Amino acid sequence: MDISVFQKAFLQYKQSQKIDREPVNLYEPVTYILSLGGKKIRPVLTLMAASIFSKNYKEALPAAYAIEMFHNFTLVHDDIMDAAPLRRGKETVHEKWDINTGILSGDVMLILAYQYFENYPPEIFLKLAKLFSKTAIEVCDGQQLDVDFETRNDVSIDEYVEMISLKTSVLIGAALKMGAIVAKAAEDDAQKLYEYGLNLGIAFQLQDDYLDTYGNPENFGKQVGGDIIENKKTFLYLKALELANQNDAETLKKLYQKKDKEKEAKITTVKALFDAYNIPAHINEQIETYTHKAFAVLETMQINKTVKESLLLFGKSLMTRKV
Amino acid sequence: MDISVFQKAFLQYKQSQKIDREPVNLYEPVTYILSLGGKKIRPVLTLMAASIFSKNYKEALPAAYAIEMFHNFTLVHDDIMDAAPLRRGKETVHEKWDINTGILSGDVMLILAYQYFENYPPEIFLKLAKLFSKTAIEVCDGQQLDVDFETRNDVSIDEYVEMISLKTSVLIGAALKMGAIVAKAAEDDAQKLYEYGLNLGIAFQLQDDYLDTYGNPENFGKQVGGDIIENKKTFLYLKALELANQNDAETLKKLYQKKDKEKEAKITTVKALFDAYNIPAHINEQIETYTHKAFAVLETMQINKTVKESLLLFGKSLMTRKV
Repeated sequence: MDISVFQKAFLQYKQSQKIDREPVNLYEPVTYILSLGGKKIRPVLTLMAASIFSKNYKEALPAAYAIEMFHNFTLVHDDIMDAAPLRRGKETVHEKWDINTGILSGDVMLILAYQYFENYPPEIFLKLAKLFSKTAIEVCDGQQLDVDFETRNDVSIDEYVEMISLKTSVLIGAALKMGAIVAKAAEDDAQKLYEYGLNLGIAFQLQDDYLDTYGNPENFGKQVGGDIIENKKTFLYLKALELANQNDAETLKKLYQKKDKEKEAKITTVKALFDAYNIPAHINEQIETYTHKAFAVLETMQINKTVKESLLLFGKSLMTRKV
Repeated sequence: MDISVFQKAFLQYKQSQKIDREPVNLYEPVTYILSLGGKKIRPVLTLMAASIFSKNYKEALPAAYAIEMFHNFTLVHDDIMDAAPLRRGKETVHEKWDINTGILSGDVMLILAYQYFENYPPEIFLKLAKLFSKTAIEVCDGQQLDVDFETRNDVSIDEYVEMISLKTSVLIGAALKMGAIVAKAAEDDAQKLYEYGLNLGIAFQLQDDYLDTYGNPENFGKQVGGDIIENKKTFLYLKALELANQNDAETLKKLYQKKDKEKEAKITTVKALFDAYNIPAHINEQIETYTHKAFAVLETMQINKTVKESLLLFGKSLMTRKV
């Protein structure tokens, strides 16, 4: 199982899916956001999963594209909600056009995603669309929890993990399961791949939290410390609050209430507090826990040994990434 | 065929569909917008269509509810785009909460609409979801054209009819066709009902344009002349521009470029121009043309005479409405 093969196949399919519709003002932003690149983890997972159960993994391309389309829909709407000016180093849709364009182009992308399932026969279509709707609603739930947490001061670690699980991981799980569905895998196998993806997705997001503060500035790509500057209540912050003495907890809370001009100083102070309570070790322990949960699910699957090793390798590569 | 029976059945079903999900901040606005009332024309049409081909029209309730959910999703997002403060006399969602809530609650409603089709077996599910996606995309196209037209000065009558057809009528057609699909009508009959709805929908929207300017203030409900105050380029305006001499056309264009404080004076002047070119007669001719097109489609259908008469009656009641 060679990931670059799946990446190549997906990019080729993507190229073939030029949107040739009017009105131009509605579809130009769709083409734009889809062209911005990104890691393509989700569609590759769909193809990977299909290849486990079928020789013709390319059958899963429309489903993979639906997932990619949906993911980009969430980016367009989330960027409006976060008032984000940049996405993958380029202007966000609502910034390049306007908020109304972002709303309507996003809407149409969500519908286009469903249309890609029409490439499958009724039984498969139903299974895909059902999983997709369930997942899409969970992603909305996760986004709402993320918004809610911004103004809450009593978020527990469990609630945080639930939020990232909904906002990020269910889609990783669904991407894998859809590949399995298209390849007509047994329901049990499809569900196990889902759980593998769900746990890997949580580990992946926690790794994101870790790298944002502890990544190497030389190869991280984004500004290290961005979450701290934006007062984002990630795992690092919540765990620190949980472990800190009253004094340090108050300091941390105060630091997270204002937009500091002394960005570097704030990052240094917060990092020192995180370090004092061994937060890096705690988050790495969690990352390992969820990675192992993911791998444990794999162990119970009756699939080809080489395939299993590829999935393990893929999981490990995500966990040791520096970006 | 008694419309009040369908209305009652639909309201009863709607009552039974309480959304009992978290996060509250996401689903409260959904419950709110669905509770605001409205004429329920679309879901009633779905039930009506089902009753033509099946004794058990109640089978069509989930499809009818999906249509109603979708329609309300478009209201929530359109109200953001139009910066509308009121909907059915109550605060709009983005006004009562905020824009982000409006975006995300709208998104979730679009997905919930798809989920209601899961009540049907795979073959029917596929047919409904396919028609739904096609229609939903057309509605987005229509909304985008409506936005585009605001800043264009060369919109033709044909383009205008295309826009209202996409924004409003395709959903009326789809509502009817879905009822036919659920009741397993022949494809030809289902398609004819769609075309009946499409033409009736255009007539309905033109009637809306007419009433907005020429409705009786005593029973119209909204402010008569609202479209004129908001410089909306409806059929009345476009037809007047088409027929007016250069002088009158310039006057009209200038009046539609500013937000007048003298609202009543503006309405009076514009109305006088419309009257001078017999615009009310022209729009009524168009309304009749599309109504007759709708009725002509009915004539070709091999359905029960009483049913046909009921559909005619329903069409006529929409066209002679005062509100």
